[in-house]
This record gives sequence, C-alpha cells and structure tokens, in this order.
Amino acid sequence: MSRDLKILALTGGVGGAKLAFGLSKLLPPEQLAFIANTGDDFEHFGLTICPDLDTLTYTLAETANPETGWGRQDETWNFMAAMEQLGGETWFSLGDRDLALHHQRSQMLAEGSALSEVTDTVRRAFDIKHAIWPMSDSPVRTIVATPEEELAFQHYFVRDRCKPAVTGFRFDGIDRAAPIQEALNWLESVDAIVICPSNPFVSVDPMLSIPGFRDRLKARSAPVIAVSPIIGGQALKGPAAKMMKELGVPVTSTAVAAHYGDLIDGFVLDNTDAHAASEVSCATVVTNSVMVTLEDRIKLAERTLDFASELI
Amino acid sequence: MSRDLKILALTGGVGGAKLAFGLSKLLPPEQLAFIANTGDDFEHFGLTICPDLDTLTYTLAETANPETGWGRQDETWNFMAAMEQLGGETWFSLGDRDLALHHQRSQMLAEGSALSEVTDTVRRAFDIKHAIWPMSDSPVRTIVATPEEELAFQHYFVRDRCKPAVTGFRFDGIDRAAPIQEALNWLESVDAIVICPSNPFVSVDPMLSIPGFRDRLKARSAPVIAVSPIIGGQALKGPAAKMMKELGVPVTSTAVAAHYGDLIDGFVLDNTDAHAASEVSCATVVTNSVMVTLEDRIKLAERTLDFASELI
Repeated sequence: MSRDLKILALTGGVGGAKLAFGLSKLLPPEQLAFIANTGDDFEHFGLTICPDLDTLTYTLAETANPETGWGRQDETWNFMAAMEQLGGETWFSLGDRDLALHHQRSQMLAEGSALSEVTDTVRRAFDIKHAIWPMSDSPVRTIVATPEEELAFQHYFVRDRCKPAVTGFRFDGIDRAAPIQEALNWLESVDAIVICPSNPFVSVDPMLSIPGFRDRLKARSAPVIAVSPIIGGQALKGPAAKMMKELGVPVTSTAVAAHYGDLIDGFVLDNTDAHAASEVSCATVVTNSVMVTLEDRIKLAERTLDFASELI
Repeated sequence: MSRDLKILALTGGVGGAKLAFGLSKLLPPEQLAFIANTGDDFEHFGLTICPDLDTLTYTLAETANPETGWGRQDETWNFMAAMEQLGGETWFSLGDRDLALHHQRSQMLAEGSALSEVTDTVRRAFDIKHAIWPMSDSPVRTIVATPEEELAFQHYFVRDRCKPAVTGFRFDGIDRAAPIQEALNWLESVDAIVICPSNPFVSVDPMLSIPGFRDRLKARSAPVIAVSPIIGGQALKGPAAKMMKELGVPVTSTAVAAHYGDLIDGFVLDNTDAHAASEVSCATVVTNSVMVTLEDRIKLAERTLDFASELI
C-alpha cells in the first residue's frame, strides 16, 4: 500500500516544495522527511539566507505567499522601502516577516548551532511535524559559470534575473560537505526516494554532489523516483529550460531523466510529454504534473507514491 | 540678534530631540549643528543600534513616532511578530522601517565607514539639512551600576524597564573616545552651546566625559546654556528623577544645574520651578519648558536663543 511507504524526498524551492506539500498531506511524520538544497544559500546584510529551506518551510506551514511561491503570505515590505530610502541594496526582496527568520537563523548560527539544528527549531516554531534537513551543515555555494564571469547563484538568479548564459556550475565547499547524519539514518529504512520537480542543475545536483551521497542513495534497494520539472519543453518555474538550452541539452523531460542517469528507477512525466515516455530508460508514469491547486499537489503526490509501491 | 547666533547643541534622545527640533526651525544649517549621545548604543541581532542618534534623526526629519517619541511614524511591527513566533528576543522593539536604518548602518560600519560618516549619510537620506555628529566615532557604552550587578544601558533601560536602583555609571570605552573633528571645528566658531533637556547622567555626561571635551567647551568664551530636564521634581520622560533619588541627589532642577557646575553659564527652568531660580548659581531664565506641541518646541528654542544672546 502506497500509504504505508516510508519516503525521503529531496527538494529545491518553489516547484519541488509543491510536491513536498502534497506528500506531507498523505504521509505522517514517521513516514516522510525532507532534504532541501542549500546550494543557493547566501549571505546578505550580514544574514545567512537559505531560500530553498525557507520556501519548503513556509510551504509546509501553509504560510507561503501563494502568488510568488516564495516568501510569506500577508507579508509587508516596509523594511525594503526604508532600505531604498537609505540607498541600501534592494535587489533581493526581504519581507518584514521573512526577515525575522533570517535574523533568528543567523543569530543561532553565530551562537554555534548547526544549520540542521536551526532548521529543526524553525520548522517546529512553524508547527511542521515532518523532519526537514538541509543537505549539509557545512556551507555549499552554487557558482554559475557564464562566458563573462562566475556568478554567485543569487547574483545570477535574482540580481541578474537569469540573463547571463550559463556554461556550467560548481558547488563551492562541496568537498567539505557531508550529509546530515539523521538524514542518512532515515535513508537506511526508507521504502523509496522521491526527487521533487526541482531544477536538476542547481537544486538537485548540489544535493547529489555531496561526497558519497549519490552512492548512498544508489546503494539502497529502495527505488529512486524523479518527477520531471520540464513539461512540454518548458520549466513551469525558474531557469531550468533556459539552462538546458544554453548547455546544449535538449529541453525535454527525457533529457532530465538522462541527466539523473542510473540513479533513478522511475520517472514521472507530464501528460504533455506522454510521447517521450518510451525514450526514458527506466520505468515511467505519465500523469498531470502541473500543480496549480492544492488538490493538484496531493494528486501528483498520490500518483508518485503509487508508482513507488509498484516499483518496490 | 538671537537669530544670528551660531549654535552647537548637545542632545540625548526624546526630550532633547524636541528642543533640537525647535532650534532647527529657527536656525539654518550654517548656524546650527548637533552632537548626540552614543553611550546608549548597543549591539542587538548583530546590528549596531544608536537610539539617541536615531531619535534625533527621525525627529528632525519629522518622521518620528509622535506617540512614543522614538521610532518611526506609520511603523509596522511584523518583524517583531515573526521573531516572537520563532522564539527570538523581543525585549527591544524594532519596527520594520526602523530596522532598515540599523541594517544600513551596520553594513556601512562593517565596510569600514566611521559612525560619523554613516550618520551623515543617513541624515542626508532623510533630507536633514543640519549636521549631526555622534559624540565619538569610537564605541562608548554606558554601564549602569546597581547593588546586584552592572547592566548594559539598554538592558537596564528597556529590558529591565529601569527597575533596578542605580548606584552609579561608567562609560566603557570613554578613554579611547575622541570627539569628531568636524564638531570641534564647529565649536571653535559658535556663539553659544545648548545642552538640551536630556538626562544629565546617561545622556549628557557621556558626551561631557569624552577626554578633553568638557575643557574644550569651557575654553570657549561662548556661553553654555543647559535646559532643565527636571520639572517640578519630575522628569517628563525617562528615569532621570528616579536616578537622582537613588543617587541621593535632590530631585530638583537646581540639582541638575549644580550637576553641570561651572560648565554652564545659563540655566533654563520651567515656570513650575520659578522659586528655585535663586538657588542656581548661574544666570537663569524661567519659562514654559514642557514641550507638548510643535509650537512649544519652537517657543522654548526661541527663549533659549534669546537667553543666549543676552549672555554673550
């Protein structure tokens, strides 16, 4: 029964968090936990900001901004308005409520807490029952290579609005990074691993690049199922399609499956891409993977869990 | 003519800033500049917060909260509300707009700017024409001695709501502090010095305790005029009266004048204290010094300037 499965889900920001939310509505905390990408973390105004962890947290807490997918609902922007008046940096939007989380995290980190401890404290404060782990306690910073220069991820993503063409990526600090031990313990007893529909290059690859982690996933007999973030040659959110084009990769869900290679045992494609299912070299499911409503999130989660139980 | 005078005004927070505002409405920037106390500055959430400088800035910019006297008008408090949800420190209220100033200042300080440069940038951003200098670029921190322990000023003042009895004060870092050179240059050509109605112990004394500064004030032939912050045995704002009582000093404006001693040439008392004028050992003026309306601020400023021109 798919509702009896124990799952580890790997996710990035907005798109992945939607499926994470769906899963959280189907499985209790004893059967579901999350690892989030921290490659797009950065330091700003002296604060450590973890966009994917925060998006996941706000989404699971049902306090995310429904229009943007990131940030908090019922947010105000008076800090930013005052910062603009003072001539400060305003390229990264920080809501007044959101800012408190960055402050509290930075304070706890400064006092010696590990990021995983901070993340746990924060998710409990938001009354989230499921465990959330950062991919590592040590800082990893995604660097985007462009023909002109290397860019810190948020400079590429937010400040420069993904305009520069990408030629590659590296994950600064990845050699020193180790997965969170609790996440590894959880992994040992899961029935399946779900890779949420996040950007393969900058959301999922940082997690998979942590030394030894991909091997740990593969070593388990539990199937690994990825949900395609590419639908009909487009990314619903973010620069994944643009990146694939610039990297010379076909902008198809098939190419995403190929990117994950022998790591995955199952791949979920959108109905739009039904024709491509036969090109994927692992088991596939074709379903609606566009998550507009909360209902959509739960349905896709349901279908993904059913798929997992079929693969076990 | 009192409107031709060049003035240096020394001020602390709310009470002093009211007179500062009145003066700023009477004299152009070529004739008026301010030094503000920084002894009550502190570090919080990794930010450097300068309450008296900020109160003066917001007051002169006519953007101060009219109800509290500190903080900004039309402020929102969503950062604090979110911080409370996260279990963070909430004893010091930081409004969403106000927070931007602390961030911008802290960022500039971290990048190597002096506090005086930051202060100048900030006052220009608020379109304040008059110069504002911190009493020093080096950190001075007022420590309040109580029978139990020594308390950082804001812990005494805000966190503990002035409840502990005070036995004395010391100004940590004062030995290394020097006045701002531009302020000293200004001092050389002023016609009078005004000590605003601020707390003598924790707002004015830190300024006067900067090595050599009191002597520089005395060395000038320009009269020094203090406005009493004690009216009818009470402080309109803050713990001045409570402190005097605890220190065994009579809670009178006469005692304030005596506290300043031979530094002052003129003393402004409220009508309520007219009977005490004869006990003050320098020249006095008796007037209404309760500043409720903006008009009150200007009238007291006017009377103070007239008094100055009489003393020259």
